[in-house]
Amino acid sequence: MRPEAILESALYAADLDAARAFYGGFLGLEEIGHQPGRHVFFRVGAGILLVFNPTATEISDPTARLPVPGHGARGPGHLCFAASRAEIAQWRDRLTAAGIAIEAEFDWPEGARSLYFRDPAGNSLEFAEPRLWAWQATRIQP
Amino acid sequence: MRPEAILESALYAADLDAARAFYGGFLGLEEIGHQPGRHVFFRVGAGILLVFNPTATEISDPTARLPVPGHGARGPGHLCFAASRAEIAQWRDRLTAAGIAIEAEFDWPEGARSLYFRDPAGNSLEFAEPRLWAWQATRIQP
Repeated sequence: MRPEAILESALYAADLDAARAFYGGFLGLEEIGHQPGRHVFFRVGAGILLVFNPTATEISDPTARLPVPGHGARGPGHLCFAASRAEIAQWRDRLTAAGIAIEAEFDWPEGARSLYFRDPAGNSLEFAEPRLWAWQATRIQP
Repeated sequence: MRPEAILESALYAADLDAARAFYGGFLGLEEIGHQPGRHVFFRVGAGILLVFNPTATEISDPTARLPVPGHGARGPGHLCFAASRAEIAQWRDRLTAAGIAIEAEFDWPEGARSLYFRDPAGNSLEFAEPRLWAWQATRIQP
């Protein structure tokens, strides 16, 4: 028995309105939860992206009916969305058209493409071809 | 066009040896990359869990051949693995047997079970039934 899927990934942002506009508006993710000042949640295929305001979530109430433990990181985090090479080219154009800087774009040694940019909170976001992580499975075969 | 999958999720830990022992040893995840002092990477089904030492990754070199942008958060982050209710019960027993505290365990209003604990760096980890996030799809149907 070992974990077979990541269900929730978290990023942190003090300005949740900006996060909603960026992830829900610009990226087009489906918003599935929003508590003003605390969080905004999005569906990404089979997974969930949680964006929390760390000031609100670092405090927890163990006596609450739903005693969700506290957490809350500060400083730029990282998250990568899967995309095809053609989609990555389209995202580059969309980001540029929206005035969002492309911080880096390159091919990894194994050939997979990555495109990097920032969300409004400064988190480092990436689009990458999933084969970026397939090389090891390939390499162990003869 | 919108992102349809999260490919990489990141957590931060200053002690990567402890992270390797915990995620690779105790949780049993397949380690697919390790650069001492900088990172350790694990495969989780179709996704990838990246554990970075923020002191090493917050600095970037835009002139490098692979100019990966800097990032690095501090303070407890959050990540949730998908698990069935039966698996969650087994994880509770394994965690307890390993001396790892169960920080919370409860059912959400929709009935999904969650189990919370910490990694060695203090990140808030969770096992949860995926149906935790299915309620909205259900609710919009008559």
